[in-house]
Amino acid sequence: MPRKSSTFGVAIVGCGTVGGAAATILTRDREVLGERLGARLELRHVVDVDFRNAERLGLDKGLFRKDLADVLADGETRVVAELIGGTTAAKDVIARSLSAGKHAVTANKALLAHFGPELFALARRHGVCIGFEASCAGGIPIVRALYDGLIANRIDAMYGIVNGTCNHILTAMTEHGRTYAEALAEAQQAGLAEADPTLDVSGGDSAHKLAILAALAFGRRVDFGAIPVEGIDELELCDIEYGRELGYVIKLLAIAHRQPEGLSLRVRPSFIPKDHPLAWIAGSFNAISVYGHATGHTMYYGRGAGGTPTASAVVADMAALATGSVQAAFENLKIWPDVTEPACQLPIGAVRSRYYIRMRAVDRPGVLARVATIFGQHSISISSLLQHEPPPGSRAPAIVPVVVTTAQAQEGNVRLAMEEIDSLDVIEPPSVCIAIVDEHPERI
Amino acid sequence: MPRKSSTFGVAIVGCGTVGGAAATILTRDREVLGERLGARLELRHVVDVDFRNAERLGLDKGLFRKDLADVLADGETRVVAELIGGTTAAKDVIARSLSAGKHAVTANKALLAHFGPELFALARRHGVCIGFEASCAGGIPIVRALYDGLIANRIDAMYGIVNGTCNHILTAMTEHGRTYAEALAEAQQAGLAEADPTLDVSGGDSAHKLAILAALAFGRRVDFGAIPVEGIDELELCDIEYGRELGYVIKLLAIAHRQPEGLSLRVRPSFIPKDHPLAWIAGSFNAISVYGHATGHTMYYGRGAGGTPTASAVVADMAALATGSVQAAFENLKIWPDVTEPACQLPIGAVRSRYYIRMRAVDRPGVLARVATIFGQHSISISSLLQHEPPPGSRAPAIVPVVVTTAQAQEGNVRLAMEEIDSLDVIEPPSVCIAIVDEHPERI
Repeated sequence: MPRKSSTFGVAIVGCGTVGGAAATILTRDREVLGERLGARLELRHVVDVDFRNAERLGLDKGLFRKDLADVLADGETRVVAELIGGTTAAKDVIARSLSAGKHAVTANKALLAHFGPELFALARRHGVCIGFEASCAGGIPIVRALYDGLIANRIDAMYGIVNGTCNHILTAMTEHGRTYAEALAEAQQAGLAEADPTLDVSGGDSAHKLAILAALAFGRRVDFGAIPVEGIDELELCDIEYGRELGYVIKLLAIAHRQPEGLSLRVRPSFIPKDHPLAWIAGSFNAISVYGHATGHTMYYGRGAGGTPTASAVVADMAALATGSVQAAFENLKIWPDVTEPACQLPIGAVRSRYYIRMRAVDRPGVLARVATIFGQHSISISSLLQHEPPPGSRAPAIVPVVVTTAQAQEGNVRLAMEEIDSLDVIEPPSVCIAIVDEHPERI
Repeated sequence: MPRKSSTFGVAIVGCGTVGGAAATILTRDREVLGERLGARLELRHVVDVDFRNAERLGLDKGLFRKDLADVLADGETRVVAELIGGTTAAKDVIARSLSAGKHAVTANKALLAHFGPELFALARRHGVCIGFEASCAGGIPIVRALYDGLIANRIDAMYGIVNGTCNHILTAMTEHGRTYAEALAEAQQAGLAEADPTLDVSGGDSAHKLAILAALAFGRRVDFGAIPVEGIDELELCDIEYGRELGYVIKLLAIAHRQPEGLSLRVRPSFIPKDHPLAWIAGSFNAISVYGHATGHTMYYGRGAGGTPTASAVVADMAALATGSVQAAFENLKIWPDVTEPACQLPIGAVRSRYYIRMRAVDRPGVLARVATIFGQHSISISSLLQHEPPPGSRAPAIVPVVVTTAQAQEGNVRLAMEEIDSLDVIEPPSVCIAIVDEHPERI
């Protein structure tokens, strides 16, 4: 049954870190691919405005093009990989490629989160596909796991550590007691955080990936703009420490959770039990835990960024387009984001979760009773309460940290309760609230 | 581009734990699949000799067949899932199904390890495929990861915890100080070990999976009979404890490791550094670490056995046969075990690794020098040496445990050295040797 060896022409647009690594796999590491793939992937064009990186990598200058039109005019080129990033020129490259009847491959999560439905509709009109394994979690084949390996499952929840910069910073805070500012500065020095780290530390990048993964996992169109997002930039070391005393580890989680009323999507720092596998993921690694009704818990771990891991996913998509398996998936699976039903995305107030709440209370009789009463009035059960000693030498009445964990509660109620608590004259606002994720108790 | 909804007939042969769970997903959970898959998988036959489990699950009696011939005669049935296990009747079911032009799906690792090349050749002759995601690591989509998601990689090594029974026993020994016999008895009581646990604890089941996974990862035909296999049934608690002091955790690992001279495949209890993600895998979970030249380290974690997790993989293969993606892979990838080149499998003596060696030495001056001299004569460098105090109250000269870890050494040399050491009059044989796996230092 194996077909006789055929050639499948590909082009790379943007020869930076990822594009350069993909070009290297396709040329210098060609024998690796040849050993495994019957069809030959032939790199025919490298498009960029500046070829310094391409030259440094020793790529053949005969491949260099300044104009995408040259690529689109080449009938032998079947796939265009957009690896320039951003949402303006990148969108134009993909749209022109699809319109010219070329398949597209992209690592661009921002583009797909914002313009996925529009671009997939364009692809379908032209009878071509978009491969996007590289857009989520770099070298981890999580996109395929969701639409192929786990297809027999109703996915109940997905929890992802999908931003290596944030995980590196949180690991430094948790394991080495660094403050957020210190950990960020170290990550920047190590080249693990951008000079302007906003997109990473704000949670925005994680939300892009969540929008893409949740659409696949739940077969629904996700409104990226409606995902509540909270970053790690305001986390205080003391909360990480109190969380640890309670048996929790903090992670920036991209969460998709099926509730009876709808889908709760959110990105925010969350406490997870220290014996959950996600709690072990340290440094710049990524991992995604998926809970399916049949498989139970599976987790996918690896490097979520970097040139060669991301290029591995880009080239896998090219290979899967050459074999036809991406096309088979898109022909038969309900994963076209432009024609799937919109997800019923719950507002953050409708989320049910457990919560960690830290208040700064005046150390005076009756304070805890007043706080507990407010929780009760909002149907919130307290599952633990930890009042720390006032710092030595503090003048009476000292301000002491009071840490409460709640049972499952509705987030809207928690927010109302916290507003009331923060308005008490015995509380120094603002109190801190961090969700505890342990809806899925299946652990080791 | 989505095709209009079509129907794809499937049959299940063997309605036990896995077969029953697959039938349940296909019937009772039909809407889950329908939400994600355009084509409809229609369960048309359930073949068994005894329908008590099928009845208990409430399956439609109209599906029950005693004779495979009824299934093979049905032109609407495109896939036969063999879920009876064993290598006799199961082989017959698959061979007859393939010969009748039906695709086969199987969870049967023993069958594929022993007869894979023969069965795949038969499939190719009849223009059909064999889906075998369920044969390795149950609900974890590792087969697809190797032939699809990681295709751009030269796989350098693969380390798998692929037997949940063994991992459960080793976890009980490591975390709760149980002896092997106690841990086995507890696992049997909990239903996590068979009454006759030989196939699991001997490492044989892990070797079956290794043969299948290594053939995929390296694109070579693997000779199952040439895989050196060692089980967990002779492990002593004291070695687990000494290993811990040195920073290692014991796991039964299925290892495939590319050395310059060839491929080293082996199954045996191995020490891994305690900060390697595989060291965290506890209880009956499975995990496979894969090191690719582009992705670096990725790891896949989940339930490696059990009805519904395994059925999830069975149904995923049926779906992928319905969409055509399994066929696309087999048409285009070099993964047919009957036509790929045979792997150059290294004999165990050619393996290079680090080693933990425990000797029982007479507590007398000069003993360590004699032992160290023998290691030196065999080109083995000692990287650490730990001599424990003699037990209190023991008569002189006491017998004391001496634990040595070596630098990278050739296993053949280590075996020769140990023979010489065990023949010394100051050593009480047999000494214990456990490989330390840290060839791939990429950790967190």
